[in-house]
Amino acid sequence: MEAVPERISVQTNVLNANQQMAAANREQFAGHGLLVMNLMSAPGAGKTTLLEATIKALQGQFRLAVIEGDLQTDLDAQRIEALGVRAYQITTGTVCHLDARMVARALDVFPLNNLDLLVIENVGNLICPASFDLGESLRVVVCSVAEGPEKPKKYPVMFNKANVVLINKIDLAEASGVDLKELAANVREVNPHATIFAVSSRTGEGLTTWTKWLQQAVEVHASAAMVSV
Amino acid sequence: MEAVPERISVQTNVLNANQQMAAANREQFAGHGLLVMNLMSAPGAGKTTLLEATIKALQGQFRLAVIEGDLQTDLDAQRIEALGVRAYQITTGTVCHLDARMVARALDVFPLNNLDLLVIENVGNLICPASFDLGESLRVVVCSVAEGPEKPKKYPVMFNKANVVLINKIDLAEASGVDLKELAANVREVNPHATIFAVSSRTGEGLTTWTKWLQQAVEVHASAAMVSV
Repeated sequence: MEAVPERISVQTNVLNANQQMAAANREQFAGHGLLVMNLMSAPGAGKTTLLEATIKALQGQFRLAVIEGDLQTDLDAQRIEALGVRAYQITTGTVCHLDARMVARALDVFPLNNLDLLVIENVGNLICPASFDLGESLRVVVCSVAEGPEKPKKYPVMFNKANVVLINKIDLAEASGVDLKELAANVREVNPHATIFAVSSRTGEGLTTWTKWLQQAVEVHASAAMVSV
Repeated sequence: MEAVPERISVQTNVLNANQQMAAANREQFAGHGLLVMNLMSAPGAGKTTLLEATIKALQGQFRLAVIEGDLQTDLDAQRIEALGVRAYQITTGTVCHLDARMVARALDVFPLNNLDLLVIENVGNLICPASFDLGESLRVVVCSVAEGPEKPKKYPVMFNKANVVLINKIDLAEASGVDLKELAANVREVNPHATIFAVSSRTGEGLTTWTKWLQQAVEVHASAAMVSV
């Protein structure tokens, strides 16, 4: 019975230490006037493919780089680099999320100057990444239609903390028997404030609305950073 | 820099404590001659729907019960009970996996007599549940075609420890642009010994092969238990 408070106390210490490190990262990002996006989802929701499509749409509009988080393999960093975008791979081994310290270490070797947007693609996990602030200012959760409509209710912490929810693979809605309106209503139920986009990386549907919004977010962030200097 | 060994040591202690508790669960299961299946997957891979289909196919063939693990909600336990099968819901709060202690507590109030099969449906997570033995003898991983072909390579621990891999939602293979042979080869690469079934809960394709295999596994387990008494 005593194991439970012990576990909570260890977890609280870990999260407090992470919060301090995240604040240091956030300060570093602000110093560079950089918008930082933490991109999160369950495994296979299509984060990397969506990121590739986003990069293709926005390349030339502003300067971006990517930090990839995975348990194993640098497959995702390779895919991003193939588009001519600088990418850094963090492999976490058995750790199921990125934390602020891992990102801080990456920043030691990954220059932030001459960038407008840094995307951090988290480990595929709909639970723990939600609890680890990396110092980002934009939290984007990708949710695949094929996962069914009730995921926001079952993983409320992740959805509740999102600034943006990208409902992805909408081309599979009919084949999956999933009602997009029901899924969006479930997002709304746990997070009335998130901006929701319905997209498909495969067909391109909805992508322009999302990438235009992102471009604007980068521009607004950059002008706010200029004012605050 | 000292945080890393500290974290590893905490994790090792947690896993050792879990191992002891799992051994106690395993003994209890063996005492009842019970086959226990730990059913794991990423969020939205279709564990519960597949379990519903499996129950419908096998109800009347043997006696089964289900323990459901979720962060929040008892939606899944309700779905199982609607089929007339006894179900117990563990809600883990923010904990991203079931552990042996949570299962042991459920067993205090969930009678195991008069059962042939106990299914424990884990929290939707392709990472941490792989590291927490619950005392089961059968580890089944469900993998949705819509997650893409490379998940076994990116989440190798989960796939490496599986006895059975159920490739689910095969009706979405064409619409998702996923080659089933490539996905199966990637499972084989990290786990040459797993038994692989390709199924669709929606269309029913492949389900009979899986449920027949499971029925046989229950029968073999029951007769082995009789011999060992």
